[in-house]
Amino acid sequence: MRDETLQLRIMIINFTDIERAAVRILPYAVRTPVLRSAHLDELTGAQLLFKCENLQCAGAFKFRGACNAVMALADDVAARGVVTHSAGNHGAALALAARLRGIPAYIVVPEGTVKSKIDAIREYGAALHFCAPTLAAREIECERLREETGATLVHPFENPDVIAGQGTAALELIGAGGELDLVMTPISGGGLIGGTAIAARALLPQIKVYAAEPEGAADAFESLRRGERVTDVVPDTICDGLRASIGAVNFSLLQQFAVKVLPVSDAQSIAAMRLIFERLKLVIEPSSATVLAAVLRHREHFAGKRVGLILSGGNVDLDRLPWQR
Amino acid sequence: MRDETLQLRIMIINFTDIERAAVRILPYAVRTPVLRSAHLDELTGAQLLFKCENLQCAGAFKFRGACNAVMALADDVAARGVVTHSAGNHGAALALAARLRGIPAYIVVPEGTVKSKIDAIREYGAALHFCAPTLAAREIECERLREETGATLVHPFENPDVIAGQGTAALELIGAGGELDLVMTPISGGGLIGGTAIAARALLPQIKVYAAEPEGAADAFESLRRGERVTDVVPDTICDGLRASIGAVNFSLLQQFAVKVLPVSDAQSIAAMRLIFERLKLVIEPSSATVLAAVLRHREHFAGKRVGLILSGGNVDLDRLPWQR
Repeated sequence: MRDETLQLRIMIINFTDIERAAVRILPYAVRTPVLRSAHLDELTGAQLLFKCENLQCAGAFKFRGACNAVMALADDVAARGVVTHSAGNHGAALALAARLRGIPAYIVVPEGTVKSKIDAIREYGAALHFCAPTLAAREIECERLREETGATLVHPFENPDVIAGQGTAALELIGAGGELDLVMTPISGGGLIGGTAIAARALLPQIKVYAAEPEGAADAFESLRRGERVTDVVPDTICDGLRASIGAVNFSLLQQFAVKVLPVSDAQSIAAMRLIFERLKLVIEPSSATVLAAVLRHREHFAGKRVGLILSGGNVDLDRLPWQR
Repeated sequence: MRDETLQLRIMIINFTDIERAAVRILPYAVRTPVLRSAHLDELTGAQLLFKCENLQCAGAFKFRGACNAVMALADDVAARGVVTHSAGNHGAALALAARLRGIPAYIVVPEGTVKSKIDAIREYGAALHFCAPTLAAREIECERLREETGATLVHPFENPDVIAGQGTAALELIGAGGELDLVMTPISGGGLIGGTAIAARALLPQIKVYAAEPEGAADAFESLRRGERVTDVVPDTICDGLRASIGAVNFSLLQQFAVKVLPVSDAQSIAAMRLIFERLKLVIEPSSATVLAAVLRHREHFAGKRVGLILSGGNVDLDRLPWQR
């Protein structure tokens, strides 16, 4: 499934957009710390620099993209609000960004979404709209709301301002961490890895760009292998932030930047998650742990290297952690 | 119980010692981040700045003092090693500091100490010596080792270099956070609050200094009330880092700096601990949570104020968190 308009759409996202995004979100976003662990370096034989996006506003990197998209809107357009469909971190991030700008946010949420994520969206003052838990139902309800309210759709990972916003995490990581041999993020719809690839390669032309993907939602891995985007994978993974399929724009960015996708099992992600709790003292969600899991599983790619890892988020059910199941 | 040599001993710790400690530990310690949460600010009606010592080497502020004490030793003295008794974070911190200097560490551990803490001490290469779980047995074994090896005793909270080292956390907190109305730390033996009071008052002469103490180990609160040091409290609290009694030097510092001690219940600490996991995405141990618990319980002291809180450590059993019991 190829999209003829891809080239055009990709050309409109470049490093300048990421620099502009960094300025635009500066008053709102957290410049999250970069942490290290001597123990994890010893364990992996690499030098690991963790960019802590679990400490970002609303608990995930998603705020960068949502904030950039909301703040980039012209006043008259912004006044009509923003709309998206999301069962997770993008919904809460967009709700918060809209509140900060003082505009309405309409979030379409599939029935069955976990209560804590709904609570987060509600806490930021967004209007919740429930629909059947299918992609078609979500898109239909989104479109209906867009027509009814005049709100702007902010897609969770295909919107160019969202992708540019996500790229600011790598900008800060390299700013704080200096020369890196390699940067890796989790991959789902691909907004984070897309923005990261653009930013990292602009700053460090020799840097390798990797993505970690659950085996149970390995559509990006499979898409690269086949050379065309696979959209029929039915996700089965504990990494609830990584169940979307790679978007068309971001798939093209993966090819353009020769991004290598490394698969990890859920058991490996859970073990890595616990290591991060224990050693970095950070609360992360399972999706975030895929990057450390990939370093541990695919050691040969990382030994002796200076590696930047983006921990994507920290919104997790604290009543029972995955290793307690 | 008064100690006539107190005045002399206190006079040897001043702000210059803390500045020297900051330089001495700079190559080894983490300059831990200061984090904020809009949600926790709203909840408390205060502006809270959290100094994240759970992200310090060996997972607690204790590394600052231990590292300062170890690095301050003359070469010939250092070569004979260091010795202490500790069932917790000070033992691991001293073991790590000794390893960094390449000298032996002898850690006396009472039988029954939790395995994870023993593992941490062993991981850093220290020699473990077990003894009966009484203060007398610990001190006798410590003294025996000191005589046998010529190692220097590094007391967990009464050693002046340790107190000066702990003060560097407040130095960094005020450096990063600017003007504060108030600073608060957990209190146990008092090394952290002692160093904090010296540093904070030197930088901000108007700052108020508070300490949070579990109701089940409220010897500092009781000591201030009676005007003399109480040492016969039998601790009963989930805050395993706060079971020691206030030391003589530190009790005198509490009086000198008019430190206010606020009691909190274990239930309040557990609730605050969960809030910090949820909102700051930080893994902390129960002792650390006492400061937020105190802000929530004693709101009137904090409303509208800019408050620095030191999160003391993050070494906690992740198999079962306190709210899961």
